[in-house]
Amino acid sequence: MALIVQKFGGTSVASVSHIEKVAKRVIATREKGYDVIVVVSAMGKETDRLDELAREVTPNPGQKAARELDVLLSTGEQVTIALLSMTLIKMGWQARSYTGSQVRILTDKVHSKARIIEIDGQNLNQDLAAGRIVVVAGFQGVDEHGNITTLGRGGSDTTAVAIAAVMKAEECQIYTDVKGVYTADPRMVEGARCLEKLTFEEMLELASLGSKVLHSRAVEFASRYQLPIRVLSSFNESPGTLITSEDDTEMEKPLISGIATTRDEAKLTVLGVPDIPGVASSILGPISTANIEVDMIVQNVAADNTTDFTFTVHRDDYDQTLEILTKVSESIGAREIRGDNKIAKLSLVGVGMRSHAGVASRMFAVLAAESINIQMISTSEIKISVVIAERYLELAARALHSEFDLNSVNQNG
Amino acid sequence: MALIVQKFGGTSVASVSHIEKVAKRVIATREKGYDVIVVVSAMGKETDRLDELAREVTPNPGQKAARELDVLLSTGEQVTIALLSMTLIKMGWQARSYTGSQVRILTDKVHSKARIIEIDGQNLNQDLAAGRIVVVAGFQGVDEHGNITTLGRGGSDTTAVAIAAVMKAEECQIYTDVKGVYTADPRMVEGARCLEKLTFEEMLELASLGSKVLHSRAVEFASRYQLPIRVLSSFNESPGTLITSEDDTEMEKPLISGIATTRDEAKLTVLGVPDIPGVASSILGPISTANIEVDMIVQNVAADNTTDFTFTVHRDDYDQTLEILTKVSESIGAREIRGDNKIAKLSLVGVGMRSHAGVASRMFAVLAAESINIQMISTSEIKISVVIAERYLELAARALHSEFDLNSVNQNG
Repeated sequence: MALIVQKFGGTSVASVSHIEKVAKRVIATREKGYDVIVVVSAMGKETDRLDELAREVTPNPGQKAARELDVLLSTGEQVTIALLSMTLIKMGWQARSYTGSQVRILTDKVHSKARIIEIDGQNLNQDLAAGRIVVVAGFQGVDEHGNITTLGRGGSDTTAVAIAAVMKAEECQIYTDVKGVYTADPRMVEGARCLEKLTFEEMLELASLGSKVLHSRAVEFASRYQLPIRVLSSFNESPGTLITSEDDTEMEKPLISGIATTRDEAKLTVLGVPDIPGVASSILGPISTANIEVDMIVQNVAADNTTDFTFTVHRDDYDQTLEILTKVSESIGAREIRGDNKIAKLSLVGVGMRSHAGVASRMFAVLAAESINIQMISTSEIKISVVIAERYLELAARALHSEFDLNSVNQNG
Repeated sequence: MALIVQKFGGTSVASVSHIEKVAKRVIATREKGYDVIVVVSAMGKETDRLDELAREVTPNPGQKAARELDVLLSTGEQVTIALLSMTLIKMGWQARSYTGSQVRILTDKVHSKARIIEIDGQNLNQDLAAGRIVVVAGFQGVDEHGNITTLGRGGSDTTAVAIAAVMKAEECQIYTDVKGVYTADPRMVEGARCLEKLTFEEMLELASLGSKVLHSRAVEFASRYQLPIRVLSSFNESPGTLITSEDDTEMEKPLISGIATTRDEAKLTVLGVPDIPGVASSILGPISTANIEVDMIVQNVAADNTTDFTFTVHRDDYDQTLEILTKVSESIGAREIRGDNKIAKLSLVGVGMRSHAGVASRMFAVLAAESINIQMISTSEIKISVVIAERYLELAARALHSEFDLNSVNQNG
């Protein structure tokens, strides 16, 4: 039987009655003749509740007791897998739950940001062969010594896609509280439209640029294994957005597929560092050692043999990064450290961009017309990102959505 | 270094501030030069909360989805071990948490009532040797296939004592919300007094007779390994009650050490069964198969070649037992099944009873003087139990406590 992996996030399993709806959807897929593996997150605000308990103990549990924080947080998904399996059993189906450790989702040892190394699909295969629906806890794994690890932000998506890849699923369905992937955040841009189809590359850019529907690590995994992902709503029957490899037979793609926006980042600048080889790595080395991901990096042209070095990190990592930079600033000979966490990033994404020039200049012209100052620019083959002051984000998004005619299909080429 | 195992129940870890007090007590023991392993239960009402979630899914989760109920309930202790370890770390100590699966507390496969088969102390020993305080989740284990199991009522006590035995601890300390083991329930009998010392045998009778402070399985374990247990309060500094082997050098023991009372049981009677060999086992066989523990058993003398057969089970198992009996009643040729869950059991316990006669007659005389009807009687070398109507329990306990002078020491011989 062909296999479908379905992942349901926290809002989809927020209560026992929500879980019943999830069970019905799983059973409907099973009744169509598919084997089903379900991956679930913690119920609604459960992870927040657990996190608050930890913060009641110590203000920064992730730094001082990262191992124990993972032990704590991983209980959230464990509750959901038990309740969903019970619900499926009550509805007359055979089901069995698995924690990350029970599947054996082997990860590295980096607590709270672990990466999957290997998944043992043997137990799951036996259960599927025995006619069982398999329910797996997202977000969690286990290191080689049996310590519980968690995968960090978007971890349950990654679990679902990784299991789908290992188990050779036909499709990995990510159920969310929105209808699919939009041309822009619908709360921000009125005319935002749900996309039918996207390439892995586009989704990867959108995800890494702050689209909340799917985490970039999950998309990377899917892309590597050429595993189709469908993002769809838990709350209605629309087909959602299918994410696959680029289809060459298709008509010319629109120039821009969507606009991604995020307030999740913060900007740090190291001023007056000597313009000598190795300085970038002596700034970023300690950041990377602390497992903080750096996103955009800009280095200005040197003046007076010194240069300024600016980069962005996740806003949650801002305080820690600032602390690290302050510590190392003397040893790298920096004049000053500056930080700003009131920034936002806005990106245009589209595979069509590859074969068309002029997107950047149109974008900058629109922002200039609105008097929005561009603080940083970063580009790739299929996206252009700018960092601007947070207060201009909605204005910029609406202006660009209109400029590139994203409300209607195929008119923006 | 000598090892002490300390077990803290749900009320002792009901909140983060409670957990801080537990941590201080653990550290105080560590600072006296002991290695410490801490065993903890779920926080306060957490197990009840999880149980209610399961009952929201299905009215009898333990029957239909016993495996999944254990997956759910075991998260309760997992939360506590993480929070306590974090707290110890915050206070400057090294600590590491272990789930039942991580210790490898190997049990049989009987979900919700699993029995411990083997404990691997290797990881714990390594941690102790490295100077760590070890924090273990009570109540839970894992079967040979890696399925999560729970040990049932009093399971955390059993975990603590079993670990103490395997790790050759000097003492297993069970922290509770009372000062120790009392001559009777202090809420029921005003003059009830905390005992300094008890034998394993007495504690075993008291525990199996409903004293809430310590579960009989834990006492059995301790008795088998000659491991001293101390029952003491989390909330003050009194020395509590020490439970050890009988000390022959001691002065003559008092006749009665204490009165145990319980409302936890229910009575079932099978009327008019043929008085032939094998009938008891055909009644109790299906009960035992369902893993229901039977406590007292009474069979009346036969009349007309038929007999009546009465026994008691835990009140929680009453409905299921009644259902089973009703199903098998025809096949065993019974005339009628009757049940009563408004009963209570009261027991006198004391090793002194062994060498003195007349306790039973004094007990029955007191009950008769209060016009309390005795429904069942059961005796052992060191206890006498009676089943009476629940509404007479307090009256009976107070009268007997006074009859045997339990308020004052050594005057009741």
